[in-house]
Amino acid sequence: MSSTRDIDALIAMMAKLPGLGPRSARRAVLHMIRKRALLLTPLADLMQTVAATARECLNCGNVGTSDICDICASEKRANGILCVVEDVADLWAMERSGTFKGRYHVLGGTLSALDQVGPSQLRIPKLIDRVATEGITEVILALNATVDGQTTAHYIADELGGRAALSSLAQGVPIGGELDYLDDGTITAALNARKRL
Amino acid sequence: MSSTRDIDALIAMMAKLPGLGPRSARRAVLHMIRKRALLLTPLADLMQTVAATARECLNCGNVGTSDICDICASEKRANGILCVVEDVADLWAMERSGTFKGRYHVLGGTLSALDQVGPSQLRIPKLIDRVATEGITEVILALNATVDGQTTAHYIADELGGRAALSSLAQGVPIGGELDYLDDGTITAALNARKRL
Ligand SMILES: [Zn+2]
Ligand SMILES: [Zn+2]
Repeated sequence: MSSTRDIDALIAMMAKLPGLGPRSARRAVLHMIRKRALLLTPLADLMQTVAATARECLNCGNVGTSDICDICASEKRANGILCVVEDVADLWAMERSGTFKGRYHVLGGTLSALDQVGPSQLRIPKLIDRVATEGITEVILALNATVDGQTTAHYIADELGGRAALSSLAQGVPIGGELDYLDDGTITAALNARKRL
Repeated sequence: MSSTRDIDALIAMMAKLPGLGPRSARRAVLHMIRKRALLLTPLADLMQTVAATARECLNCGNVGTSDICDICASEKRANGILCVVEDVADLWAMERSGTFKGRYHVLGGTLSALDQVGPSQLRIPKLIDRVATEGITEVILALNATVDGQTTAHYIADELGGRAALSSLAQGVPIGGELDYLDDGTITAALNARKRL
């Protein structure tokens, strides 16, 4: 290889990012080197800042820069209504739709017999606890329309029993579809047409 | 958005990289935050190092960490034979094939009437100069099989006149194809079957 060790190492590490392979990593690194002042140096600085400050919210699992995230800490969000999502990316997708004004709970995945993921590997105990202690009256299960997503929704519905009104996103979520792929309008429609379980 | 300003800024900047869009940038940033010690911090460090050290070779245009790149500085590479490529990514693709043992010259693009790119915006004057002063007896024009690539090859052939034997990559380069997309075996075959112009 003509590139020196640090450049090679940078390419190899960039290639580990989801959505990038070796070829796109090489392209990205050459592009960054050409745009050093506009891209490479600011990216390095931002990554260092984020590495030093990013953390998971102790309450809901969202990613932010404090132990309690902006949404959990906000006084403007509605109490009593909780939207349960699998992943932080799904929470961000919900927020982009701008429709939901309550609070969130990020499970960190779904139950999976195949991958041996049980309730305690997810934030399910914490969810049960929040519903009991935060005066939650409605829980929206905004899980992906996959087998594991729906299994997880049923498990949570069983665990919560009658302690809160449950609903799931309805209209607009395609079979097998994932929230983070949907446009904002579809998410809004699915949220407005949510059906009680 | 639930993510804080630095995380948003990092996502926005990652989305500017070739091959990444907003969605894949969000996925990449969440992945990096989860793999902070393995990915985010080392990436930030490597980017800072590369930003501080990467430079274009003054002789050939390759990217390295010194004014004269490893290939130009190497005593093991054959003198007298020069492989001309459009882009550093093409040089790296040639090197991965492991076949070529001579030196390189990176044009930095192709002539383009549409984009108003003339010879002086590329490293063409430097190429003419190198052929005259470095005792070059063979020039391989390893340009992409695009209209602009072939126009550039013809222009260089005219400029060099009879001062060096000219060849172009032959067998294996598909019409409209770009070097950086080819597998190593195809590049090797094209190089071995190069035809004189
Ligand atoms: Zn939170
Ligand atoms: Zn060089």
